[in-house]
Amino acid sequence: MKSIIKYPSKKDWTKLLERPAFNYDELMTSVENILIEVKNNGDEALKKFSKEFDGVSIENFQISEKEIDDAKSKINIELKNAINLAKENIERFHSLQRDPVISCEPVTGVRVWQKSTPIEKVGLYIPGGSAPLISTVLMLGIPAVIASCEDIVLCTPPDSEGNINPAILYSANLLGISKIFKIGGAQAIAAMAYGTESVPAVYKIFGPGNQYVTAAKLKVSLENIAIDMPAGPSELAVMADEYANPSFIASDLLSQAEHGEDSQVILVSESVKLIEKVQLEIVKQLADLPRRQIAEKAMENSSFILMKSEDEIMEFLNQYAPEHLIIATENNKKIAEKVQNAGSVFLGDFSPESAGDYASGTNHTLPTNGNTRAFSGVNLSSFMKKISFQEINPVGIKNIGNAIELLAEAENLQAHKNAITLRLDYIKNEGL
Amino acid sequence: MKSIIKYPSKKDWTKLLERPAFNYDELMTSVENILIEVKNNGDEALKKFSKEFDGVSIENFQISEKEIDDAKSKINIELKNAINLAKENIERFHSLQRDPVISCEPVTGVRVWQKSTPIEKVGLYIPGGSAPLISTVLMLGIPAVIASCEDIVLCTPPDSEGNINPAILYSANLLGISKIFKIGGAQAIAAMAYGTESVPAVYKIFGPGNQYVTAAKLKVSLENIAIDMPAGPSELAVMADEYANPSFIASDLLSQAEHGEDSQVILVSESVKLIEKVQLEIVKQLADLPRRQIAEKAMENSSFILMKSEDEIMEFLNQYAPEHLIIATENNKKIAEKVQNAGSVFLGDFSPESAGDYASGTNHTLPTNGNTRAFSGVNLSSFMKKISFQEINPVGIKNIGNAIELLAEAENLQAHKNAITLRLDYIKNEGL
Repeated sequence: MKSIIKYPSKKDWTKLLERPAFNYDELMTSVENILIEVKNNGDEALKKFSKEFDGVSIENFQISEKEIDDAKSKINIELKNAINLAKENIERFHSLQRDPVISCEPVTGVRVWQKSTPIEKVGLYIPGGSAPLISTVLMLGIPAVIASCEDIVLCTPPDSEGNINPAILYSANLLGISKIFKIGGAQAIAAMAYGTESVPAVYKIFGPGNQYVTAAKLKVSLENIAIDMPAGPSELAVMADEYANPSFIASDLLSQAEHGEDSQVILVSESVKLIEKVQLEIVKQLADLPRRQIAEKAMENSSFILMKSEDEIMEFLNQYAPEHLIIATENNKKIAEKVQNAGSVFLGDFSPESAGDYASGTNHTLPTNGNTRAFSGVNLSSFMKKISFQEINPVGIKNIGNAIELLAEAENLQAHKNAITLRLDYIKNEGL
Repeated sequence: MKSIIKYPSKKDWTKLLERPAFNYDELMTSVENILIEVKNNGDEALKKFSKEFDGVSIENFQISEKEIDDAKSKINIELKNAINLAKENIERFHSLQRDPVISCEPVTGVRVWQKSTPIEKVGLYIPGGSAPLISTVLMLGIPAVIASCEDIVLCTPPDSEGNINPAILYSANLLGISKIFKIGGAQAIAAMAYGTESVPAVYKIFGPGNQYVTAAKLKVSLENIAIDMPAGPSELAVMADEYANPSFIASDLLSQAEHGEDSQVILVSESVKLIEKVQLEIVKQLADLPRRQIAEKAMENSSFILMKSEDEIMEFLNQYAPEHLIIATENNKKIAEKVQNAGSVFLGDFSPESAGDYASGTNHTLPTNGNTRAFSGVNLSSFMKKISFQEINPVGIKNIGNAIELLAEAENLQAHKNAITLRLDYIKNEGL
């Protein structure tokens, strides 16, 4: 177990706040080649890459109705109920996130308003591999459906027999998503960015993925395709005091750690006793984990930090800007008010991160790598964009026209001024 | 004048919907060198680039109080009043855009909520050059102040004598922005992204700029610095019918055209007469414009399109997804409801684009190049990010715990399941 870092000076914070740097430059050349080939050769390129990377020959990328029916019959009723419960909670919370129309008349005759409209075409990437992310289907699909996005395209990699995990198909179908494609990796991002004979092009691409997927998303983001956020290794920071339950905290740190060897895990406390108890619990709980090796490796990069006050801890955590933040202290509600930078915050002993990962209603697609300083996690607004409107009448243009003329003149933009002058003259001549 | 494109078939739309492609790859090497040098050498690099690109030796990049006082004395009372009027309208509309706290209890014992918090450190880039963009100071500065961003850093290029346009200084000071630096171009973006001895690093960078500035913003966006949006040449599409005033429309098209030679200007109508009248008016109004050469060049890339129905026009415009859209038709309110993709929409004869550019209250920093399909213009939310919270009590975890266990198991994430099982066992043992 890592030793406790006791009362680090601010000078030492820099190192503690660091994330593992990942250099995408090295991947970029191979990712760019994949992107270009899919752009130029469409489905042919997808077939080639499926064979090369997934080891499988695929003729029809789109999932058929029969495959959906098969998937439905393979899911037991307990899992169906669990998916349904999660779906309902996520729907409830995300339905409330609809932006209202904002409207005002800042001066008489000038009416301005702002309205959100759905992004018409969105693409959802759902990783496959060791953990079939059913929950990610819900977390991306539900807000896309609530937002009324017209085209929802879902890509997920096939296994070596060309199949998709039935729970992923079941969940996508439950949400009404019908454009499901068995395509993975950078080639899936390329397909959704440029479109192919089978896959419709979209305007925004969502979803986690490995470094190739991330590199591909970054690359297409330079070509006017929007992406949800830059993704990195998952993170959990826990702030706890002596009233917290060490066994619960250990279980939360480990659920973060099992995500991947590069998972970032931090515990900060004023109580050395609490930290020591948590460490003992981690050793105990690690023993039985199927993904023990991954979790152990992640724990090697973890930090256990002793600090001298609540304020210092919050200053540190706001600078760290974690993806997930558990506040397991007696006064957690008060401390929650001080959170400036975090993706999702969990309060008290009975709010484990896995609740937010699956079923409490909040979204689990969150910024990492300090990006919560400037980015939101996925929410309903991520699937919409805001348009401003204005309607000005003659009285309005009389009220603001002169100011516009002066400002346009100060910026040397005479035609901008003319557009007002012509209207003011007309209003005068017509006696409006 | 360009000839009218009459009733183009859908096949021909592709070409009409195109934007001029700009390849940033060619700029990237020189921009990357600037970024790296500022990252490594801080102020020294800034000094070097100021001499090289702005032709001026600068010792202190930060604007002094004396410079602010001088600027104030140089602005006449009329312009001050105009700036104040614009400021008040922009403030009124943007103040209403505050996201409320969203909260619900999707099942008993599970409380989830979402709260917006300000991005602590933001950087505003204000271009200099031929048009000193006072209005951009207001459009970026006002929402930053309303959002309560702690650090607002403003960079703008100096003239060849090392001075900043006094109206820019006056406006920034009026908003309470004190960290103003005379730095332009890609080096300004680098300074705000990485920080130097004089310039604080920020988390998100806003503002228009030339191709070097845009390339620098795109580059730092790959390094976990957020940016407002990818910027491109400015655009205006006008939909008009025979009830519209041709002289007004000509003036609006020309105010777009004078922005730059690469400005995109489109007029679409069912009435060939209207289009012809507008073209005559354009010729007439062009004659007197100081920026005539720029506007003429832009008009060479313009399109005048005749279409057969309102529905067809709206389908075309939604696909084009313009930055600015003027709807100068009798039934403009009805048509406005059909707008899916646009940055800012102007209704009727007395809502010129220049009203939104300066003083009606809406923001003028808008996505271009078709990006309104997936991006919003700058608004209050651009300076904030959303954090989700949850507080679950024993009853809540009893309600959703089993579903989480099943989902975690289906995803092969045992530690995620354990975090729930431990809590359910505890609740059972303690009789909670």
